[in-house]
Amino acid sequence: MDKEARLIGTSAAEHPQELRLWLRLLTCTHLIEARVRGALRDQFEMTLPRFDLMAQLERAPDGLKMNELSRRMMVTGGNVTGITDQLVLEDLVERVQVPGDRRAYRVRLTPRGRAQFADMARAHEAWVVEAFGGLSEREIDTLHRLLGKVKQHSQAVITHKDSA
Amino acid sequence: MDKEARLIGTSAAEHPQELRLWLRLLTCTHLIEARVRGALRDQFEMTLPRFDLMAQLERAPDGLKMNELSRRMMVTGGNVTGITDQLVLEDLVERVQVPGDRRAYRVRLTPRGRAQFADMARAHEAWVVEAFGGLSEREIDTLHRLLGKVKQHSQAVITHKDSA
Repeated sequence: MDKEARLIGTSAAEHPQELRLWLRLLTCTHLIEARVRGALRDQFEMTLPRFDLMAQLERAPDGLKMNELSRRMMVTGGNVTGITDQLVLEDLVERVQVPGDRRAYRVRLTPRGRAQFADMARAHEAWVVEAFGGLSEREIDTLHRLLGKVKQHSQAVITHKDSA
Repeated sequence: MDKEARLIGTSAAEHPQELRLWLRLLTCTHLIEARVRGALRDQFEMTLPRFDLMAQLERAPDGLKMNELSRRMMVTGGNVTGITDQLVLEDLVERVQVPGDRRAYRVRLTPRGRAQFADMARAHEAWVVEAFGGLSEREIDTLHRLLGKVKQHSQAVITHKDSA
């Protein structure tokens, strides 16, 4: 889980500080994601991809077409279909016909799905608050601001490359 | 790619700052990982899991047994086997017999694999340095320090839960 440990174990001094920062960023992401994944499983018998899919639907009260859902999930259409099938079986999401288009449908949360997602989202917030419990309010703000610069720079680089 | 955008688009003020921080951390990780993934593909026709596997072997000059490799890669043995098979075909890694145990073998980089990995690792460092190009040296140090606190706290929480 700790990508840094291996780097440090060999020849840390040879590597630029940015590489050590990147491995630490990866490690933090993986640690927190593992915590969320484990808690979703233990407390809700829920996988992270299913939680993510329900989170997308929660923000789209009218539901989403499969291609919209796939784009937002950034995984293959096949995966989204499999996850959706499972959630339909558990009566957490449903497929509804698009009026005037016999072959198109939207996926949306069922009332049961909406209620369960609300419970999970509340718990998820608490786990995340706990994950950053080692930081003061001011440190959280600083981290948020510095990561904002990283994000902005990365997005600018991507935009530049795409338009080149 | 930007998990934050959706949260902010709905009801940012209702969410704790920690949740916004977490989504920004995820976004940064995904943006940089996508950049690395794209560059590995474009410049070396290499996938990220294959790069990661070669990185593990680079740190183990005597090679690794499959179970050690799987543990370090934290993916299923099946995936590691598939990736290894592909790298063997390209003469980047090789399987070597473990003396005294006819059924065991180690996987290690070939000379060609070692040379190619050195090229990729150099390029990888440059991409990562570029990814953090929006930060000053001092900001990089601050980010590294704050993420160190996050990591330490997460690891302490996990240790506590494991021993509970």
